[in-house]
Amino acid sequence: MGIAIVAPGKDVETWKEIFASKAPEINVQVYPDIEDYKDVEAVILWQHPHRIWEQLPNLKLICSMGAGVDHILQDPGIPKGLPITRIVDDGLTQPMTRWVLMAILNHQRQFYRFEKNRASSLWDMSNPELDITVGVMGVGALGRDVLEKVQSLGIPVIGYGRSRKTDFPFPYFREDELSGFQKKANVIVCMLPLTEETEGILNLRFFKNCSPGTYLINAARGKHLVEEDLLEALDKGWISGAFLDVFQTEPLPESHPFWKHEKIHMTPHIASVTNPESAIPQIIENYNRIQNMQALVNQIDRTLNY
Amino acid sequence: MGIAIVAPGKDVETWKEIFASKAPEINVQVYPDIEDYKDVEAVILWQHPHRIWEQLPNLKLICSMGAGVDHILQDPGIPKGLPITRIVDDGLTQPMTRWVLMAILNHQRQFYRFEKNRASSLWDMSNPELDITVGVMGVGALGRDVLEKVQSLGIPVIGYGRSRKTDFPFPYFREDELSGFQKKANVIVCMLPLTEETEGILNLRFFKNCSPGTYLINAARGKHLVEEDLLEALDKGWISGAFLDVFQTEPLPESHPFWKHEKIHMTPHIASVTNPESAIPQIIENYNRIQNMQALVNQIDRTLNY
Repeated sequence: MGIAIVAPGKDVETWKEIFASKAPEINVQVYPDIEDYKDVEAVILWQHPHRIWEQLPNLKLICSMGAGVDHILQDPGIPKGLPITRIVDDGLTQPMTRWVLMAILNHQRQFYRFEKNRASSLWDMSNPELDITVGVMGVGALGRDVLEKVQSLGIPVIGYGRSRKTDFPFPYFREDELSGFQKKANVIVCMLPLTEETEGILNLRFFKNCSPGTYLINAARGKHLVEEDLLEALDKGWISGAFLDVFQTEPLPESHPFWKHEKIHMTPHIASVTNPESAIPQIIENYNRIQNMQALVNQIDRTLNY
Repeated sequence: MGIAIVAPGKDVETWKEIFASKAPEINVQVYPDIEDYKDVEAVILWQHPHRIWEQLPNLKLICSMGAGVDHILQDPGIPKGLPITRIVDDGLTQPMTRWVLMAILNHQRQFYRFEKNRASSLWDMSNPELDITVGVMGVGALGRDVLEKVQSLGIPVIGYGRSRKTDFPFPYFREDELSGFQKKANVIVCMLPLTEETEGILNLRFFKNCSPGTYLINAARGKHLVEEDLLEALDKGWISGAFLDVFQTEPLPESHPFWKHEKIHMTPHIASVTNPESAIPQIIENYNRIQNMQALVNQIDRTLNY
């Protein structure tokens, strides 16, 4: 019995090597070169082909290769009775926080304005810092680390999320308090999980309710953002600029207006890339727990889908 | 008796207003409109005219308007027997840390490479993070805050300074261990005080000893850097790029090669700007301590000049 990696098109050589060194006793096969599907008790998925399920009669565990599980849950055929786990660790948190801080600080310390001035050899010392409050939407492990680190730099922060929180160490706004959250923040960082409720949450109505000059940072999923609505909001001045790592279609098509937009900066979905060195031990741990009928780590709640 | 602000060319209206609201009992005069020089017991200096001293027979305290005192010590006529204080507070530390983090993260998360790719609509996810060790030269209040905050982001840090340190919470290299420091770090942040010993410390010999691909950040003083040596080091590839806030001549002359250099990014000496709201209470405190013959806060050591 063993594990199958199902991530078509992705280079998983490093994953195989790390499994071989950390758990040589586990048989790890890579889709589509799976010798015996009956042997597979756990799958590690990234953009898997739907309908793979019928071939896996002994499957007990579904693991996401990354922090998100939306790529799994998009598949309507996913077996209802199986646990799904995601990756939660510093290997994802720290790069993400570094990326979000870069996006926040370039805006707050007015890097783009100084770059423009540089092009015309203009020495203008005026107004060197913007007065910002950073609002983080999505306060899981990744969002909380951003809240902590931004606050430690002397920048006020607030959080927004779905669940009720007790002892949350930052001002917190729940689902039905979105407009209060938008009134307080003028830098909004989307770190939400992608679910039916959050898909398209960054839309024209949202932008219209933003505080004047709000800056948008999307580090979550392309489908959180209605892209044409952002273009309109930038045009109307409801949003002053945006830094995006994720897009509706990836790779972003060459003709997409985001590429050349002067108020948009972007990176190609690299804010946080799963580090197999830290992800694989979590998967091995869960694989062993399944064998021993123990509670899993980082299992998603299938009623909430995150 | 009272205080004189001597900062020709600088708009000090806000300073006067804050003094008036926080310590209305202190007579605050602004150079050159000083009615009676004999009344002045303390001066607050920024680029003061030399030889002002002869006119100040009752002077007891010299305060720098900012974190640095090099602008005061450049004046050979400065009275030897008087205490000199500087500003040390979060009002300076936090903006400086934000600026340094911006410079570090744009390099580490390869913002400049992604900006270039953006210009040609190129989606290239490869190599999203550089493996860096940040070496901070100068481990006073400002340098230590940078060390702490960078380390909290999962980036290894080391410090370099003049004085012997016990219980220093980061790997530390002393004056005579500069080459060891340069071997370990590949991002070097200059936050040194400007003294006779540190002037021109960032020179060709220094750059030649740097680890391959070292990135340079200067947040201290223009005179730490031999500017033509940086150009040569960038040209030779000893230094991969630089982010500078300070320059030998400020404003940076329009014809200076730094403006258009593709490996140099810069801001116009705005990394940390003294915030009078937090600076003035320190000056009032010291003014009162002088009256009461008490020990001063943030007094520099005149044998070390910082």
